[in-house]
Amino acid sequence: MIKVGIIGSTGYAGAEIVRIILNHPEAEIKWYGSRSYIDKKYAEVYGNMFKLVEDICSDDNIAALADEVDVIFTATPQGYLAGVLTEDILKKVKVVDLSADYRIKDVSVYEKWYGIEHKSPQFIEEAVYGLCEINRDKIKDARLVANPGCYTTCSILSMYPLVKEGIIDKNSIIIDAKSGTSGAGRGAKVPNLFCEVNENMKAYGVLTHRHTPEIEEQLSYASGSTKVDDVKIIFTPHLAPMNRGILVTAYANLAKDVDYDTVRAAYDKYYKEEKFIRVLDKDVCPETKWVEGSNFYDVNFKLDERTNRIVVMGALDNIVKGAAGQAVQNMNILFGLPEDMGLNLVPMFP
Amino acid sequence: MIKVGIIGSTGYAGAEIVRIILNHPEAEIKWYGSRSYIDKKYAEVYGNMFKLVEDICSDDNIAALADEVDVIFTATPQGYLAGVLTEDILKKVKVVDLSADYRIKDVSVYEKWYGIEHKSPQFIEEAVYGLCEINRDKIKDARLVANPGCYTTCSILSMYPLVKEGIIDKNSIIIDAKSGTSGAGRGAKVPNLFCEVNENMKAYGVLTHRHTPEIEEQLSYASGSTKVDDVKIIFTPHLAPMNRGILVTAYANLAKDVDYDTVRAAYDKYYKEEKFIRVLDKDVCPETKWVEGSNFYDVNFKLDERTNRIVVMGALDNIVKGAAGQAVQNMNILFGLPEDMGLNLVPMFP
Amino acid sequence: MIKVGIIGSTGYAGAEIVRIILNHPEAEIKWYGSRSYIDKKYAEVYGNMFKLVEDICSDDNIAALADEVDVIFTATPQGYLAGVLTEDILKKVKVVDLSADYRIKDVSVYEKWYGIEHKSPQFIEEAVYGLCEINRDKIKDARLVANPGCYTTCSILSMYPLVKEGIIDKNSIIIDAKSGTSGAGRGAKVPNLFCEVNENMKAYGVLTHRHTPEIEEQLSYASGSTKVDDVKIIFTPHLAPMNRGILVTAYANLAKDVDYDTVRAAYDKYYKEEKFIRVLDKDVCPETKWVEGSNFYDVNFKLDERTNRIVVMGALDNIVKGAAGQAVQNMNILFGLPEDMGLNLVPMFP
Amino acid sequence: MIKVGIIGSTGYAGAEIVRIILNHPEAEIKWYGSRSYIDKKYAEVYGNMFKLVEDICSDDNIAALADEVDVIFTATPQGYLAGVLTEDILKKVKVVDLSADYRIKDVSVYEKWYGIEHKSPQFIEEAVYGLCEINRDKIKDARLVANPGCYTTCSILSMYPLVKEGIIDKNSIIIDAKSGTSGAGRGAKVPNLFCEVNENMKAYGVLTHRHTPEIEEQLSYASGSTKVDDVKIIFTPHLAPMNRGILVTAYANLAKDVDYDTVRAAYDKYYKEEKFIRVLDKDVCPETKWVEGSNFYDVNFKLDERTNRIVVMGALDNIVKGAAGQAVQNMNILFGLPEDMGLNLVPMFP
Repeated sequence: MIKVGIIGSTGYAGAEIVRIILNHPEAEIKWYGSRSYIDKKYAEVYGNMFKLVEDICSDDNIAALADEVDVIFTATPQGYLAGVLTEDILKKVKVVDLSADYRIKDVSVYEKWYGIEHKSPQFIEEAVYGLCEINRDKIKDARLVANPGCYTTCSILSMYPLVKEGIIDKNSIIIDAKSGTSGAGRGAKVPNLFCEVNENMKAYGVLTHRHTPEIEEQLSYASGSTKVDDVKIIFTPHLAPMNRGILVTAYANLAKDVDYDTVRAAYDKYYKEEKFIRVLDKDVCPETKWVEGSNFYDVNFKLDERTNRIVVMGALDNIVKGAAGQAVQNMNILFGLPEDMGLNLVPMFP
Repeated sequence: MIKVGIIGSTGYAGAEIVRIILNHPEAEIKWYGSRSYIDKKYAEVYGNMFKLVEDICSDDNIAALADEVDVIFTATPQGYLAGVLTEDILKKVKVVDLSADYRIKDVSVYEKWYGIEHKSPQFIEEAVYGLCEINRDKIKDARLVANPGCYTTCSILSMYPLVKEGIIDKNSIIIDAKSGTSGAGRGAKVPNLFCEVNENMKAYGVLTHRHTPEIEEQLSYASGSTKVDDVKIIFTPHLAPMNRGILVTAYANLAKDVDYDTVRAAYDKYYKEEKFIRVLDKDVCPETKWVEGSNFYDVNFKLDERTNRIVVMGALDNIVKGAAGQAVQNMNILFGLPEDMGLNLVPMFP
Repeated sequence: MIKVGIIGSTGYAGAEIVRIILNHPEAEIKWYGSRSYIDKKYAEVYGNMFKLVEDICSDDNIAALADEVDVIFTATPQGYLAGVLTEDILKKVKVVDLSADYRIKDVSVYEKWYGIEHKSPQFIEEAVYGLCEINRDKIKDARLVANPGCYTTCSILSMYPLVKEGIIDKNSIIIDAKSGTSGAGRGAKVPNLFCEVNENMKAYGVLTHRHTPEIEEQLSYASGSTKVDDVKIIFTPHLAPMNRGILVTAYANLAKDVDYDTVRAAYDKYYKEEKFIRVLDKDVCPETKWVEGSNFYDVNFKLDERTNRIVVMGALDNIVKGAAGQAVQNMNILFGLPEDMGLNLVPMFP
Repeated sequence: MIKVGIIGSTGYAGAEIVRIILNHPEAEIKWYGSRSYIDKKYAEVYGNMFKLVEDICSDDNIAALADEVDVIFTATPQGYLAGVLTEDILKKVKVVDLSADYRIKDVSVYEKWYGIEHKSPQFIEEAVYGLCEINRDKIKDARLVANPGCYTTCSILSMYPLVKEGIIDKNSIIIDAKSGTSGAGRGAKVPNLFCEVNENMKAYGVLTHRHTPEIEEQLSYASGSTKVDDVKIIFTPHLAPMNRGILVTAYANLAKDVDYDTVRAAYDKYYKEEKFIRVLDKDVCPETKWVEGSNFYDVNFKLDERTNRIVVMGALDNIVKGAAGQAVQNMNILFGLPEDMGLNLVPMFP
């Protein structure tokens, strides 16, 4: 059994790791880290876990934790892991970081968009960007996996085949994303109160959202560039009145004269064998409800002859494939387990 | 492998049986019955099942089905199964009926509350009421299981220990229940449209809801009576703006001078060893979200010295423990499998 | 023009007073008090008020305010008004208090249920309980109106004719109430986050909710008693996943042999001429959506011959008739205006 | 008093006209047309109207109606009005059509996108497109007003100043719109059931939505063209889990070197004096909740130097400014009343 420690286990992403690992046949949680709820029963913080988790929340001592477990998930605020990570820890355990600390290769880009100093840039180089379907081979041998963001996973997977195959003008990409409110975390803030979110839609972080450079970097690599900002996108996140789910609607100018079959072949080339990616049948639009609670990412596209553009739609559950599910998928890869172990979650409808 | 046939597989309860059986290690679905969608791909009716279910919907030929499978789930309108069930079918397969056709022992009560003639009353006597935690032993050898209703499961389990132990005046029971909208089914009706349900609460079927006699009959048995209407309750269902979940708040006059520990002991007596029943810690109120997607039923109570009454609160997911989950639990009992096989569903939060 | 000051104008109830007064032909707001947002533009706190309110939030100086306005609404936490109210203020302005400070005549009951010391009990006696339809005549000449709570208004109005006419056993009343989340206020607390409330139902404050003694006192008076606790009820509030609306479902034992017409006559006796109370047609169940945004309170009942009980259903918008609307109605009475001035709000559907 | 007849008064848009007219000082409804509910009390179809509307629904006899009222609102399916409109009717009454029958000048475009034959193309030429802020002068003398669609109003108003002033490349416009479910109407369809919409986001009608040519035609005119399709856009509607509200996020390439002040000046040039249009303060993103229940349209924009594009965000209530509110605004213009009469609806929050 793989021994698992979670730092930040009482946030929504951390709690989702718990939900998934509880049914994972080869892993068990040994440490429920939570700075906010030290010494409190985990099941008192999450009532759904009553009788399922008997443990008490512990503090965030990552050095101690490294001696007790095989893998650490950090579902923590930006800057936390960068502030405590050491070579000694990485020698002892695998680390899957759900924060952004090691996602961005250019530390100046990180510091600009996140507005904080990076305390351990020496580990950025070796960190592997944990988008499983794209970087599977590199993840296998990694010590430190930078688990992608929720918007990011959905955006990159939506555009990857198009950029990789040169089907679109890579500088024409516009990503309009709609997210459930769990993406905003469990912090007590007025804008996330029920009465503020319910019956409401709004854009936020327009042109300044921190997932932008992460998407740009990965799509730059996909385009064949070694630069981290060869692709410039517009990314607009929206808050939707639902708990879970991200829907990306992306637009780009076609760079080639393509038809449905050609573009479909591009998606199939990269995704046909992927268990967690479903390229939908022609003309079917993804719905976030179809992936809720599961590790699926659904995608489809439509070509517009009138304007010579493509519209791509992608959907995933922001806390599963967009966070905890992908983190467990990364763990499976790191430990040589079948990639879908513990992740055969059937989407819940309704 | 147990071969499973579902008649009415495209309703919400039928679809939930599919969701659960897909992860059941000892059962597989062989027949997706759906009168409304004959010859249509199941995954076109439920987009969440894309790439998970490749089958086509079949019509409702139960006689043919009986030759092909080991167990039939009927998630059909009232009167359907009563109209087609035969001795020949029951000789070949186990039948778990999610409709009300065989739940009520007194056929005149059934005909009065449901307003339809019962076409095969000869099977009522042998049918076992499939409330697993109460009737487990009888279910084992049954051919025909009458799977309880959603309101019913929640109501009976909430009051059972109190009635059984004579703690309350059995004719003082008032059950105020709040249900998610999936309980109303997938039929296209104006009152179930999003805009009619969202931002709205209402009672409906007040004093006339058809689950009333079912609750009364089972509580009558619990009280030691052989009559089906020895207990008379008030049952008020409400429609709540959520997909899933039933919350029962029940009230009764205390018949004895009891304290918390006494009443707690009564609940523990019947439920402590039950995997799917969670008696919450003192003063913790159940929340439907804590059981969503799982087969759990959560319960707690408070004693009011001011009025000498008890308030009981019970919560379950109406399509899982209130329908499909309990149906699979019954299947497990019927086939001698561990009762929780395929049902270790961790509640999803948020 | 009546000059209005609001202390606590940035809570949901205070903001609703603003919404209503903006269309009131004889009143205008002169003071937007808000301890939390001093010197901030009101329209920055409530974006819906952009271009409608140009004012800046002021602090809570009630003494200064008393010199500037004709009426003060206090939509403040419990204890605030009791801590600052003086005879001098009451000589200058009318005060309509939306908190509980002057609702309860027995100060020891107040201090027990609210857990705070009452700082100015000398004003309790003269304060008039502002349930307009019941206390209209007393309100006219009041200096200090204790505006009823949201649950309270809905509960009292539901049971008043039954208690007043002796139709029910006054000690058998059980009130099961379901409230929208705006009743919990705009404070940033984890339990009120969107993801915690959405897709969830729960009871809370069971047997201990502070609106209980307020309901009991008023129903005691209705029963002809001069004691404040002659009636003992069970009151169970629930949190429902919607912004607005309270639905009360109340139960009581019948004390007389009555039929529909008799009970209907009792409701008509007190409510037929009331503009803001709608006794629905026979068998129609109130829905909170039918009163949303309006000052209406809808009510209906059903008699159960099987158990000799009555089920009463009442619905109102918790921030209008349950708070701000009734407060303005009280203002109209205080100033001799038509009671419905500014309150002809048509319920919004959907 | 203006006598008003509504054909299609029991749809959501028709019902909203009723809500608004009930508080209009110079208009009264004389005819509640509803083919589906003939002879039924209107308040039985919309429970919120109990005691507010005593009328019975009538059938759809527009010829008879023309003799009884001053203005007819048709809130009917596409093709209805085109099938019954006559010169005789137009000589007697003003007609404000909320369907698309007379919105599109090129009948072949109408027939292509709507898939039906236009039965009275002879009235298309004289019909005035009722986007009040743009076509106010023409509306004054019209007999027949084609009230714009909900998506259309929001989209056109968002882009109008940019196109008019040549700030953007008019063929680079991408409109990503999110709508509440009331836009789908009150018809009983499975995709609009609560359980299908709640906790779900999806795009629909991608590249084929019928509001596309309407937006293109009006923006073509704004660009100075006389052609109806000089502007080609991408328009992607999405269904959001809320009752009301449309949020448009629109993208376009800048055609000029502009800064914030320049673009702001363009919006102010057309909208500063408009009562129902609110250009928000710099960096404030519109929220649909801020306009709910009101006739406001809110707009703002951000310039992206990185990609030389503009992001425009617009919000309105789809049944008010997007349908019934604008229809009443048109009525006010037609009859020479103050344009905001009966429309001073303060947005309801929360």
